[in-house]
Amino acid sequence: MEKLFIIKIGGNVLDNAGALEAFLKDFATIKAHTILIHGGGKIATKLGEQLGIAANYHNGRRITDAPTLDLVTMVYGGLVNKQLVAQLQRLGCNAWGVTGADGNLIQATKRPVKDIDYGFVGDIKPENVNTKLLATLLQQNVVPVFAPLTHADGKILNTNADTIASVLAVALGKLYDVRLIFCFEKKGVLRDVNKAESVIRHLPRELYDQLLPQGVFADGILPKLENAYAALNAGVKEVLIGEAIDLVKNTGPETEGTLITL
Amino acid sequence: MEKLFIIKIGGNVLDNAGALEAFLKDFATIKAHTILIHGGGKIATKLGEQLGIAANYHNGRRITDAPTLDLVTMVYGGLVNKQLVAQLQRLGCNAWGVTGADGNLIQATKRPVKDIDYGFVGDIKPENVNTKLLATLLQQNVVPVFAPLTHADGKILNTNADTIASVLAVALGKLYDVRLIFCFEKKGVLRDVNKAESVIRHLPRELYDQLLPQGVFADGILPKLENAYAALNAGVKEVLIGEAIDLVKNTGPETEGTLITL
Repeated sequence: MEKLFIIKIGGNVLDNAGALEAFLKDFATIKAHTILIHGGGKIATKLGEQLGIAANYHNGRRITDAPTLDLVTMVYGGLVNKQLVAQLQRLGCNAWGVTGADGNLIQATKRPVKDIDYGFVGDIKPENVNTKLLATLLQQNVVPVFAPLTHADGKILNTNADTIASVLAVALGKLYDVRLIFCFEKKGVLRDVNKAESVIRHLPRELYDQLLPQGVFADGILPKLENAYAALNAGVKEVLIGEAIDLVKNTGPETEGTLITL
Repeated sequence: MEKLFIIKIGGNVLDNAGALEAFLKDFATIKAHTILIHGGGKIATKLGEQLGIAANYHNGRRITDAPTLDLVTMVYGGLVNKQLVAQLQRLGCNAWGVTGADGNLIQATKRPVKDIDYGFVGDIKPENVNTKLLATLLQQNVVPVFAPLTHADGKILNTNADTIASVLAVALGKLYDVRLIFCFEKKGVLRDVNKAESVIRHLPRELYDQLLPQGVFADGILPKLENAYAALNAGVKEVLIGEAIDLVKNTGPETEGTLITL
């Protein structure tokens, strides 16, 4: 199977013009099939303030009411997405900006209201990814750039960018050898949270099971690792947690970040 | 060659929720390759006012300064485009929203500054349309939905939606039998501007040349007709000027609007 890198960037890259430019330059040099997924960064919140749209959060997740939905559709699907695409095009990378609505690439289910109404938020599953159309684009050497938006029943829905990355990785894991890369604010998963240089370069399941009872993993990294192993169990070949600045190495055989495998 | 409808809608459809819904329902029933091009409508101007971005025009064309570019990128490329796509998806039409930047579908040249600096505006030519990728999408029964944005040198550029429609029609005229449809506020080109029912159903070049010296064509319609014949001369099979409400008939053999041919 051919290699496919699925790379997710968030605010720590998007909100820093210098870091973003450096990242895009490195990204454009990747010589393999690649998909980029971006979050929204601070721009949506800033524009929301200008427009008097208050940001409401519950457990760290933004509640997407109707004005917020319009805001994120504009900012994520329009401004951020198209600026990334135009910049990558200049760098010789045939980027193509999409949301899950385009070509029905990711059909979602609006999150059911239980204790909390998250509003216009889409939950997604690998079965609802249009892998055929995505593979058609990839075979044309196009680089899909996903905004964190999906759709259901005629509506755009807000969907977590990490979730989109994982779901795409699982769905495309049937057709490609996928390395799913999360750009993180640290070099990788640390053996000692106070030592930046204590990156665990390779974290196979066996080592994880050894280190877990020793309390090595901090609360912040645990859910990411659990999600990583879930993706691997569902057919993703490798998951990498690393810093955006190390992208070139992290798409190569000897990674700077933490390569997680079964 | 297969048939391809290239359909342009503007504010008179986009700014009227009822008209838009009816149009999209009809659009989704078309059983042939189709591309939709949309303008921006009043939403950009309204949002611009909320954000304190003044709209500056010169000869009816908006001047696109940096804040206006961000505004139209958000509104045309994000909000309007993705809402249209999500609504078409619900209607069973595999819509896929794009700008000229995506997949390098339309590479532009930033308009040179002569007497007036139009700002971030892109001029385009049929040679710079990526017909190969567009044809790949069309063969997958995808319906591209174009926002009026192109790109050059790492920047999104604002481009007139009528121009995009014409340039796409000429570029794809080599691969498809193209009918280029402009949705207009009237039923079609009128023989008598005061009589709504005086639509000229078929306007071959010969008839045009006969009627022109008689002063039949009002100032508003003349440039549209000149552009239509230019497109036909460049390889487009048919141009139709008609009302959005007549879309079904206007994509059939007996049109309600004005079918313009050589």
